[in-house]
Amino acid sequence: MSDRNIRVEPVVGRAVEEQDVEIVERKGLGHPDSLCDGIAEHVSQALARAYIDRVGKVLHYNTDETQLVAGTAAPAFGGGEVVDPIYLLITGRATKEYEGTKIPAETIALRAAREYINETLPFLEFGTDVVVDVKLGEGSGDLQEVFGEDGKQVPMSNDTSFGVGHAPLTETERIVLEAERALNGDYSDDNPAVGQDIKVMGKREGDDIDVTVAVAMVDRYVDDLDGYEAAVAGVREFVADLATDYTDRNVSVHVNTADDYDEGAIYLTTTGTSAEQGDDGSVGRGNRSNGLITPNRSMSMEATSGKNPVNHIGKIYNLLSTEIARTVVDEVDGIREIRIRLLSQIGQPIDKPHVADANLVTEDGIEIADIEDEVEAIIDAELENVTSITERVIDGELTTF
Amino acid sequence: MSDRNIRVEPVVGRAVEEQDVEIVERKGLGHPDSLCDGIAEHVSQALARAYIDRVGKVLHYNTDETQLVAGTAAPAFGGGEVVDPIYLLITGRATKEYEGTKIPAETIALRAAREYINETLPFLEFGTDVVVDVKLGEGSGDLQEVFGEDGKQVPMSNDTSFGVGHAPLTETERIVLEAERALNGDYSDDNPAVGQDIKVMGKREGDDIDVTVAVAMVDRYVDDLDGYEAAVAGVREFVADLATDYTDRNVSVHVNTADDYDEGAIYLTTTGTSAEQGDDGSVGRGNRSNGLITPNRSMSMEATSGKNPVNHIGKIYNLLSTEIARTVVDEVDGIREIRIRLLSQIGQPIDKPHVADANLVTEDGIEIADIEDEVEAIIDAELENVTSITERVIDGELTTF
Amino acid sequence: MSDRNIRVEPVVGRAVEEQDVEIVERKGLGHPDSLCDGIAEHVSQALARAYIDRVGKVLHYNTDETQLVAGTAAPAFGGGEVVDPIYLLITGRATKEYEGTKIPAETIALRAAREYINETLPFLEFGTDVVVDVKLGEGSGDLQEVFGEDGKQVPMSNDTSFGVGHAPLTETERIVLEAERALNGDYSDDNPAVGQDIKVMGKREGDDIDVTVAVAMVDRYVDDLDGYEAAVAGVREFVADLATDYTDRNVSVHVNTADDYDEGAIYLTTTGTSAEQGDDGSVGRGNRSNGLITPNRSMSMEATSGKNPVNHIGKIYNLLSTEIARTVVDEVDGIREIRIRLLSQIGQPIDKPHVADANLVTEDGIEIADIEDEVEAIIDAELENVTSITERVIDGELTTF
Amino acid sequence: MSDRNIRVEPVVGRAVEEQDVEIVERKGLGHPDSLCDGIAEHVSQALARAYIDRVGKVLHYNTDETQLVAGTAAPAFGGGEVVDPIYLLITGRATKEYEGTKIPAETIALRAAREYINETLPFLEFGTDVVVDVKLGEGSGDLQEVFGEDGKQVPMSNDTSFGVGHAPLTETERIVLEAERALNGDYSDDNPAVGQDIKVMGKREGDDIDVTVAVAMVDRYVDDLDGYEAAVAGVREFVADLATDYTDRNVSVHVNTADDYDEGAIYLTTTGTSAEQGDDGSVGRGNRSNGLITPNRSMSMEATSGKNPVNHIGKIYNLLSTEIARTVVDEVDGIREIRIRLLSQIGQPIDKPHVADANLVTEDGIEIADIEDEVEAIIDAELENVTSITERVIDGELTTF
Repeated sequence: MSDRNIRVEPVVGRAVEEQDVEIVERKGLGHPDSLCDGIAEHVSQALARAYIDRVGKVLHYNTDETQLVAGTAAPAFGGGEVVDPIYLLITGRATKEYEGTKIPAETIALRAAREYINETLPFLEFGTDVVVDVKLGEGSGDLQEVFGEDGKQVPMSNDTSFGVGHAPLTETERIVLEAERALNGDYSDDNPAVGQDIKVMGKREGDDIDVTVAVAMVDRYVDDLDGYEAAVAGVREFVADLATDYTDRNVSVHVNTADDYDEGAIYLTTTGTSAEQGDDGSVGRGNRSNGLITPNRSMSMEATSGKNPVNHIGKIYNLLSTEIARTVVDEVDGIREIRIRLLSQIGQPIDKPHVADANLVTEDGIEIADIEDEVEAIIDAELENVTSITERVIDGELTTF
Repeated sequence: MSDRNIRVEPVVGRAVEEQDVEIVERKGLGHPDSLCDGIAEHVSQALARAYIDRVGKVLHYNTDETQLVAGTAAPAFGGGEVVDPIYLLITGRATKEYEGTKIPAETIALRAAREYINETLPFLEFGTDVVVDVKLGEGSGDLQEVFGEDGKQVPMSNDTSFGVGHAPLTETERIVLEAERALNGDYSDDNPAVGQDIKVMGKREGDDIDVTVAVAMVDRYVDDLDGYEAAVAGVREFVADLATDYTDRNVSVHVNTADDYDEGAIYLTTTGTSAEQGDDGSVGRGNRSNGLITPNRSMSMEATSGKNPVNHIGKIYNLLSTEIARTVVDEVDGIREIRIRLLSQIGQPIDKPHVADANLVTEDGIEIADIEDEVEAIIDAELENVTSITERVIDGELTTF
Repeated sequence: MSDRNIRVEPVVGRAVEEQDVEIVERKGLGHPDSLCDGIAEHVSQALARAYIDRVGKVLHYNTDETQLVAGTAAPAFGGGEVVDPIYLLITGRATKEYEGTKIPAETIALRAAREYINETLPFLEFGTDVVVDVKLGEGSGDLQEVFGEDGKQVPMSNDTSFGVGHAPLTETERIVLEAERALNGDYSDDNPAVGQDIKVMGKREGDDIDVTVAVAMVDRYVDDLDGYEAAVAGVREFVADLATDYTDRNVSVHVNTADDYDEGAIYLTTTGTSAEQGDDGSVGRGNRSNGLITPNRSMSMEATSGKNPVNHIGKIYNLLSTEIARTVVDEVDGIREIRIRLLSQIGQPIDKPHVADANLVTEDGIEIADIEDEVEAIIDAELENVTSITERVIDGELTTF
Repeated sequence: MSDRNIRVEPVVGRAVEEQDVEIVERKGLGHPDSLCDGIAEHVSQALARAYIDRVGKVLHYNTDETQLVAGTAAPAFGGGEVVDPIYLLITGRATKEYEGTKIPAETIALRAAREYINETLPFLEFGTDVVVDVKLGEGSGDLQEVFGEDGKQVPMSNDTSFGVGHAPLTETERIVLEAERALNGDYSDDNPAVGQDIKVMGKREGDDIDVTVAVAMVDRYVDDLDGYEAAVAGVREFVADLATDYTDRNVSVHVNTADDYDEGAIYLTTTGTSAEQGDDGSVGRGNRSNGLITPNRSMSMEATSGKNPVNHIGKIYNLLSTEIARTVVDEVDGIREIRIRLLSQIGQPIDKPHVADANLVTEDGIEIADIEDEVEAIIDAELENVTSITERVIDGELTTF
């Protein structure tokens, strides 16, 4: 048996899929909060790689506090313009010098932000539609970490913190997640009127699922109100169709419900994001690390995006617990729902959490005792391999929002 | 019967008090995230009052995005100094002109921030230890609200959002909440070495409660390491004693556990907050509106601090659901735990939520049916009186973090 | 006779060319102060054109206060990097709305800045090596100007101000001016190691002219110290040769005199400008509108770059007086030196200055009386045509620094 | 004889007092440009003193680039308010660490700015009416200076630069200078309606002097238009009377000439400075180091305010040449006007300028030869004592604008 403090227990209550009311939300890639998450995380990855390239290990940094101040725009059918630019401030700490080697943390951050914005928001021009500024204070030298060195050891927990992960997703969760991904993927490639700021909210009452989608339409691809209505209808149809892949329940899809055509109030943007007109954003206020906001489930308040993946225990445990939950559900039969919670113990190695807590709802006919050992073994193995989380974060393989 | 869609149902699971593991956290007033929450909310109140004074109603604004960029300090026994100032950016939207009346939203915001900082962090000098800047964009004119006028009506929901509230607090929650409040109250008045940035974490496993407190000590009141140790011991003893008021369980108290006296690593500050040295902060990343972070309970991601209390449905419903939960528990016997969730319906009056959902754990021998009507009547009455939430927020009677 | 108050008088003193000691300086295009001048003026032109395009006339604006905060760089033979970005703040006033038409003044300014930086400093990457921010306040509506309308009239002076111009340039002045232009022109095209931040100082004592040139070398084109020395020697030779086109006096040329090869102190940059490492800049602190700093001559303190060319009398009179001086010297024989001063009269049409003052040194054998009428007629005609200055500024035909 | 290269020669031309047209300007203490000069210089003094206190010598810094971005105000008879705050950015370089001692350069700068603003603009509230931010880059360590140590030596010139000074002031110059000082001194103490932003322009044609004064009146001390007219009349009378102390020529005084009472356009402010409404400012664009802008005289473009007084040769030579000119005129009879120019030689001790150039206009009957030795001896002595300039700057005894 492992010497890790792993507990496997039945869940307190019904599986979320069986609860009467379920609420799920996803803020898409171009939403101001997600944009901040994405930039913070992209900056973090770029810094981590730069440290490894230049000094052979990841030094102390945290860039989890990007703040976006909205601009003003004058969208118009056929193409409008940004009037006052968006302002985006990347803040945090970074080690700027190590044993005589200078690390240009601020220009690395700006380049990462440009790259991310160019990829994510093709209609937002870096430097003119959005002014990106950076204030990275100097990190304390004594917090330098040793990830990336030969013979790396397991870091110690720097804080008392906890992470939580769930699996599998409910039907409503999958619809919400996949709808945004598909709309922001192939669908908007084929339908450029569909912008990147897409917010999807799912509400299930019993067997009735309402999916409410807010899509920032891109004005240069919308000629008139008819074109706008067609774009809205297209999204509605697409999401309704997509939902049938994930559920047999009744699904109603609503798109841009705040529009009022009589008053000319429609969700038209020049850049594909509401950040152009009044919607501020910041890191850690949107999706949790599984890509969703799920008030029916335990959530951590921790902002994972932008945190140093070597020693920030809140980030590591949120990502790891989600990974564990998914692996358990994939590999062990008979589980309807699992929740994994990892609680750190300050000053102890991060592969030895204070508690690793698995709560399960099993299929009918399956007892906890039947699968307990299997589940515990997976948790044990994943904890042993905790530093792979760090590698995968740096390589961009794990998403944080 | 009310025409509101109110449901009263048994909870899915055990009461939190009876769960095996419970985690609770509170970031105290001087924590960088709480500081941002407090300033955002104080600015909001000041703006709301200014609108009422000048034009008779609250106009459109939102100031829920304050960002704090940490400074650098050189604390020292007997008194050190701030080296690089903290930078604090108040952002958001505000209506600056209404029917010819100018409203100096930015100077109002700065004055509110100064007032709040002076009250909350007596050792942090506004304008030199912390540079406070402000960027308030112009809000759209068509969102002007009518709160405060004679014959006020109930506003319409501006969004699909939800709020959640719980009652009563568990023992662990009460200890965490009251310990911070007491330390930041009379205790620090009497013991000025105790700074305002106090973070309290409670972890209960079965009947063992660990309370971990991190206190930023104020250097001018600490002469040497002995003095520091005495201050730490004082806090430990005080919290251990306080805990006995709220529980009979075993309580262990740990204070400033990251200290390493041999290496001279102690939690000493010049200003009483870690914002002076490396810890950034922003709104909505700390305590929920009941003052706590409670991963064992449903939480909303909504940042309530700084939001307009007239029409921001996420703010109103989070505060209101908490109020309802408390009232129900106060007035109805036989409830061990209640959770209230309010889900808004866009375009409908805010006193008519899409769903008002009460989940209860009752005392032994009490059935839901016994108290259902009573509970529903309280919810109905509170919803009818929803606009009183707005008034109480503006008057500073309700806390948001 | 004209009704303009024109005076033609002998100069008080010797022509500058005959004075014993003469000092002349030019800050080249890539100097931090000149960069601010250039951006301010480029933004001004872009705004003026946008106003004409959108509302048919130039509205109130002034953008004469660009501030540059230097960055940090780590230049290295073969190519170094910018460590901390340069920060550039474009400030001023602009009209953002006129009779319902929105003018995106801030994004226009940012685009103009990007265009100018890309053209002027090919090695400085906009948005990452330099963060450009903008704060344009709203100009007062009642200052809207009518330039560009049909039947345009001559504007009134908005201030009591004065302008001064001289002609012809002395030999030393021509050498200084032409050396920088040639180095920043064909020479650096052929010798890319020569950066854009070139400062030229000329000092003449009697018939000995010292030309001191400071050139920011571009590291990616300099392989080693030998390459650096060769680049320095190339500049020295080129300027020495160029000087012979303008003078028969003795000319000594000194390049990068602050270098200390033994200590490895050389003027090597990554971006071609000292703004990358410690040298701040702002508008109006460098060259006067004739492109030179000339302590031997009357100068105006007025910052001409970035000022509104329709109604800013200081800008117009500095440019006009220089134009007049040049025209008089071109068209009238017998003048060794002329100084034109124009003093405005607040509230009067700008073609009617309070005083237009011409001071001449004539060739031997020529009396003022011989040429007075001719000179006065030219001044009169130029003043009558004053609004052409505005047009030529907007079209970018007149330089301001 | 001295080994310094001192030349004493007749001036090229008439004394300014005898020229036909003379123009003089002074921007008073509360003018946005002067405010920047004053803050930059006050910050510089505070830094210099802090370096001496903490490490025994002045380290490298320059703070000569303060930028002010104007606010918006709504002045009103009896008292208005600031609507959008003024933004003031202190930039430059400073050494922040020296042999293990940290110097809190940024908080020192902010404290100095607060002190200066509180003293100079009593109606402008630091931190709310004006947001003061600071960006001080790290200065290069190898430029650390040794002023203040025992056995201090004379520093070397860091640049090729020049300074120029004149004496005595003409009548017009004295009137302009003394009028502003008196208005900003006892007069405004007795007449608080007179604000601190006072601009005085003097124009002399022959024996007619026009003095134009623009005074920002302070709204809380002006009840109505009658009160305003009375305040304007008071200033006019006071200046007219003051002028008689300095001249027998005809003097006309004009106050707030841009007012238009019919249109309600008057120069009323809430804070006593035009910075509150649309007028930006920056260092080095206003008064030269003798307190005046004098286009009839040689001027240096050098911004003296905020420069390091130990090694910045442009600052030292501008102040020193002015001191020399005054001393010569005080101590040597028979001089109508003197101009002193000092040209530095890079890498040479600053007490050995490349050229020290004195140009004189003598009284009738006095030849240069009569006084040449006396003048040269004074120049020689002053140069020998050049480091006293540094001390007096740090002690605040010398003004720079």
